[in-house]
Amino acid sequence: MEFEQTIKLKKQPRIIGSYTIVGPKEGQGNFGKYFDYIMKDDSFGEKTYEKAERKMIENAIVGVIEKAKLLPKDIDILLAGDLLNQIVSSSYAARAFQFPFLGVYGACSTMAESMAVGSVLVDGGYFDNVVCCTGSHFSTAERQYRFPLELGNQRPPTSQWTVTGAGSCALSLHGEGPKISMITFGKVIDWGVNDVNNMGAAMAPAARDTMLRHFKNTKTTPGDYDLIVTGDLGKLGSEILIDLMEDEGVMLGVNYCDCGQMYFKREQKTLCGASGAGCCATVFNSYIVEKMRDGQYKKILFLPTGALLSATSTQQGDTIPCVCHAIVIEM
Amino acid sequence: MEFEQTIKLKKQPRIIGSYTIVGPKEGQGNFGKYFDYIMKDDSFGEKTYEKAERKMIENAIVGVIEKAKLLPKDIDILLAGDLLNQIVSSSYAARAFQFPFLGVYGACSTMAESMAVGSVLVDGGYFDNVVCCTGSHFSTAERQYRFPLELGNQRPPTSQWTVTGAGSCALSLHGEGPKISMITFGKVIDWGVNDVNNMGAAMAPAARDTMLRHFKNTKTTPGDYDLIVTGDLGKLGSEILIDLMEDEGVMLGVNYCDCGQMYFKREQKTLCGASGAGCCATVFNSYIVEKMRDGQYKKILFLPTGALLSATSTQQGDTIPCVCHAIVIEM
Repeated sequence: MEFEQTIKLKKQPRIIGSYTIVGPKEGQGNFGKYFDYIMKDDSFGEKTYEKAERKMIENAIVGVIEKAKLLPKDIDILLAGDLLNQIVSSSYAARAFQFPFLGVYGACSTMAESMAVGSVLVDGGYFDNVVCCTGSHFSTAERQYRFPLELGNQRPPTSQWTVTGAGSCALSLHGEGPKISMITFGKVIDWGVNDVNNMGAAMAPAARDTMLRHFKNTKTTPGDYDLIVTGDLGKLGSEILIDLMEDEGVMLGVNYCDCGQMYFKREQKTLCGASGAGCCATVFNSYIVEKMRDGQYKKILFLPTGALLSATSTQQGDTIPCVCHAIVIEM
Repeated sequence: MEFEQTIKLKKQPRIIGSYTIVGPKEGQGNFGKYFDYIMKDDSFGEKTYEKAERKMIENAIVGVIEKAKLLPKDIDILLAGDLLNQIVSSSYAARAFQFPFLGVYGACSTMAESMAVGSVLVDGGYFDNVVCCTGSHFSTAERQYRFPLELGNQRPPTSQWTVTGAGSCALSLHGEGPKISMITFGKVIDWGVNDVNNMGAAMAPAARDTMLRHFKNTKTTPGDYDLIVTGDLGKLGSEILIDLMEDEGVMLGVNYCDCGQMYFKREQKTLCGASGAGCCATVFNSYIVEKMRDGQYKKILFLPTGALLSATSTQQGDTIPCVCHAIVIEM
């Protein structure tokens, strides 16, 4: 290991393809024109929202294999996870394919975790082509984590809107695309927030911890990146992160942004913005990868965050432990 | 990649320590004398069974670090997962430590998945010391997957008893212990079983698929291993596996056994035997590792299986997709 928590990838696996699929509300948001597929309605022709989420993930896997100009038989392994209990959306989606499956869980940081493990499998020469995927669905997350949809409960001002969408990327040593050069693996951080309607505040300390460790280990500063982008801290959470970093003497400037904060338009009334595993997965695998391929961003630091709670842990009065993994991607 | 689905580890990470902690019923079972710690009662001094499960996992992590003669600061990363929604037992346990955390989920195959990813991280030179851990608790699993404990529902003859216990191992290139030499990653297999009280029947086809692929890829036969051990197929599931393999012309002989089938004594009335992520995790990290260190087993094939369902998928009428990963361990 070169640095504590941070690894350098010698061969630097490339993102040879990426794919996104989202719901109609997401399609009307700020990244609408970058997504590969926008569903007409969020049930996606299925009888339950859970089955719709599964179908989105399945389509994101099929889609990325095509976009990477590969065939299913070229894929060595799938790494995926989601927010549903027992990550069933991913496991059931994986059933449709003839390649092996590893289930990963990092809540809304799952895109980073799947890319981290996938990068290592490719960089180490164990596999040639790996697919990483995650997603979330507003209606399944809402009824699993919070309240029945029929209740129509009022959303507090700190709440965020779970993205209905799935994103995927294919990693390989062969082909063209942005390269994954470094990964900083995050610790579980819990500063005592217990408000399940304020995920941004819960997750900001985890982003702070991983970001500080990353800058220290790699001897870089915010100015070394064209873009520093967190996953789904939202409006409040990203403000908190900026404050926390300032307290440590690190000034996050105009090159810092948050996928959740940018996702929706103001008139879409999502309060603190977007969240969910599908949030950064769909922004990264559409807009960000495209801007890297265009040469607009040459080096980015991608920091998806995840809140590792469950409805049961909340009911038993626990606070919310969070995690954040950082990935450096270069063009 | 040397073979489809199967990877060879060049440096062969060693299991430099392993630790197990179990409940009182498990302590009275066939492996009682091999476990490191037997709890006096399965609430482990906590107010809820969920918190007891978390404490077991935390103790298994502390325990293995000590047994590997390491300090917490020597650990580079923790790979863990469990059966509770959002793998909260592992995530909350990870909060107590200053090393990074990757959450993995493969239901009762989680021990194999954590060892597989951990082995790659060590073998590839990314990290020096990795801890892999999983566990389960009868009372948390029963009330999450099936019925409230207070209901006292009758268990059908095919049911298995979720092990209350956690097992962990530390992997490193430095130190003594059994070596991990090959891994065959499993596909998600679903032959249409939808009876949540017959996990053995649901999982046997996944064990068959991975085992057949493993023998083919590595050009080995059952006779090349001192021990072939599945995770928690139980009495019925392991019989089904023997039949399925015989249909393919592969005869599993006296060197084949199943952790779930062997776990409890007949008078403990667990019907088809043990199950749960803690089942093979506690047998492997106690009895099996000890017998390898003693020289009784020189080469084993370890095949934990997992049923990737959730209560929601069951309620929505889905069948049970399963997975099995195979790990070759040599002394």
